[in-house]
Amino acid sequence: MNIYLDYFATTPTDPEVVETMLHYFNKFFGNPSSLHRYGTQAKRAVEIATKRIAKLLNANPKNIFYTSGATESINTAIKGLAEIYPKNHFISVKTEHSAVLNTLSALAKKGYKITLLDVDENGLIDLQQLKDSITPQTLAVIIMLVNNETGVIQDIDAISGVCKQHNIYFICDATQAVGKIPVDATKTDILCFSGHKFYAPKGVGGLYIKPGIKISPLLNGGEQQPIRSGTLNVPGIVAMGKAAQIASQKIPDDIQKAKLFQSWLENKFREFDDFFLNGHPIKRVPYVINGGFLRIQAKDLIARLQNIAISTGSACGSGKLSHVLQAMHKNDKQLRSSVRITFGRFTTIQEIEYFYYKLQEVLRKF
Amino acid sequence: MNIYLDYFATTPTDPEVVETMLHYFNKFFGNPSSLHRYGTQAKRAVEIATKRIAKLLNANPKNIFYTSGATESINTAIKGLAEIYPKNHFISVKTEHSAVLNTLSALAKKGYKITLLDVDENGLIDLQQLKDSITPQTLAVIIMLVNNETGVIQDIDAISGVCKQHNIYFICDATQAVGKIPVDATKTDILCFSGHKFYAPKGVGGLYIKPGIKISPLLNGGEQQPIRSGTLNVPGIVAMGKAAQIASQKIPDDIQKAKLFQSWLENKFREFDDFFLNGHPIKRVPYVINGGFLRIQAKDLIARLQNIAISTGSACGSGKLSHVLQAMHKNDKQLRSSVRITFGRFTTIQEIEYFYYKLQEVLRKF
Repeated sequence: MNIYLDYFATTPTDPEVVETMLHYFNKFFGNPSSLHRYGTQAKRAVEIATKRIAKLLNANPKNIFYTSGATESINTAIKGLAEIYPKNHFISVKTEHSAVLNTLSALAKKGYKITLLDVDENGLIDLQQLKDSITPQTLAVIIMLVNNETGVIQDIDAISGVCKQHNIYFICDATQAVGKIPVDATKTDILCFSGHKFYAPKGVGGLYIKPGIKISPLLNGGEQQPIRSGTLNVPGIVAMGKAAQIASQKIPDDIQKAKLFQSWLENKFREFDDFFLNGHPIKRVPYVINGGFLRIQAKDLIARLQNIAISTGSACGSGKLSHVLQAMHKNDKQLRSSVRITFGRFTTIQEIEYFYYKLQEVLRKF
Repeated sequence: MNIYLDYFATTPTDPEVVETMLHYFNKFFGNPSSLHRYGTQAKRAVEIATKRIAKLLNANPKNIFYTSGATESINTAIKGLAEIYPKNHFISVKTEHSAVLNTLSALAKKGYKITLLDVDENGLIDLQQLKDSITPQTLAVIIMLVNNETGVIQDIDAISGVCKQHNIYFICDATQAVGKIPVDATKTDILCFSGHKFYAPKGVGGLYIKPGIKISPLLNGGEQQPIRSGTLNVPGIVAMGKAAQIASQKIPDDIQKAKLFQSWLENKFREFDDFFLNGHPIKRVPYVINGGFLRIQAKDLIARLQNIAISTGSACGSGKLSHVLQAMHKNDKQLRSSVRITFGRFTTIQEIEYFYYKLQEVLRKF
């Protein structure tokens, strides 16, 4: 029995999404820039997908753009703003994804000033520190909606308010939120997302960009989109559109089921007195448990769980100590014991029970 | 009867490729950066694909990198070199794809010097002009192997020789060549390609980079690849790998069939005395006929051919007059009459005959 509890690393593509996408490989396979029937069919399919994605994000379809994934969306947003506007200061948070942190590091090497906000033990930023960090040179604030390791939810409304008040752009990395919880893109200036985190395939993502904001394209070329050149990934976009449509319907059920799994598992875990939980106890999405048991290191636990796939943190950070948990002032023992368990739409109660059964077997031996 | 004769805009995905890729949406769906079984399965699939692509390009798998397509590959190559090396002069050609020309324009705005070589009436560059354009500040020469409008093949061996002699990098856009004719990437320093031009899906492409050449990444983040961050598009890469494997076997047959179609059609076209052909009569891939009939404008011809999909030039340049044909000194009448007819692996003799039958019907009315 193989059990996948690493839905934050990537999700399986929803079979309904695969079904929809399939027609766009060799039936409606045109290049949407072509003027003939094959092209216009593809173009129309992209338009339908865009409407579905816009609906999921409470946005206007005109403000949705496509990329190859969240990393490209984030690079486009940050570098694209930096290129256009003369201000040279960015504010972000120590617990952001490496796509944000490393993009900012690249800008720092070119002379941009970067402030990284602290988080408290629960993973939340301090709004006062955000306000205090703003200078006349601040161009944008980049803060993720849902943390990819802990599931902690930042107070986007409050952050958005501060940014508006100071006339600063708010770029929100909503990669772990879109398709999983309700997201209102219009509260942000730029919102980044990725298909493969919500049951669409890898290789497609997007951006919401508020009208009036200028972005210098990262990819120059055929100008298929004003902010991004390159042939549109029609099957990927169609798939992400379908995934968005499904999410619009299923988010309430997905949340309810995840809440059940999360609370059941956390209650069971608490029976072990060396259990600790990372992240805010309430301001957190229901799809994740990040924590551990002090008696056993994460790598040993993962090895002993054999056919059950959980992780130590982000997939791309595999093997390193988590910068997110470090920023949350976790001690060395906690850092080395922390695992991330994430579940999703296709997780069953049987899988959760079996996982717990195997876990306690391992724990009792230690 | 719908007939697709626009294989240079995009190709249908080979059904065998779709079949292979299908398993990677929700069976082997892991993130290749994950350390568990789902991750290692995905990683292994990427490694197999990379071997297949490397074999097609006569390259070492270590030197193959993935992107979202040719536009990203080209932007990565040009901007990535510019970022690392202090030299500030690029040489390219007036007939390059907009992904090259617009990337160079973006660099020109930042102070880089750009020289665009002329082509003769046949679309070929003059090697002497290339040599004469080289300065001590020249960092790289960017020249495409096969032109995307005319199919004209530049003399890559000779260009490569000049670049080596002058210690200049040679970036080759081989988007319309890879998978269609034999390509030896090792003759270049960086070679760019795209999956959807050779029967893999849209949204995936790649780069060959000769060892020792440094490229600053365009996308910063999780460092999944040293030159490019972002979760690997596993289904896309698997698909491109399969397409490469198929191409390695089928290129001779594909070429032979295309030659037949090309010569049959061109002979028929020559029966109309206002027919003209664009591009070198011999140094040209067999998959394309770019030309026209002076009696009828391209837009009128295309409209009257109804269910037959041909184009006026590149898909992304739809509606504009071709900069490629302009550089080849075509007169205004020729520019407005030129169409691009491109065929491929799934084109049948029946389709070619039906196309010609419909075409002559239209022509006889004018």
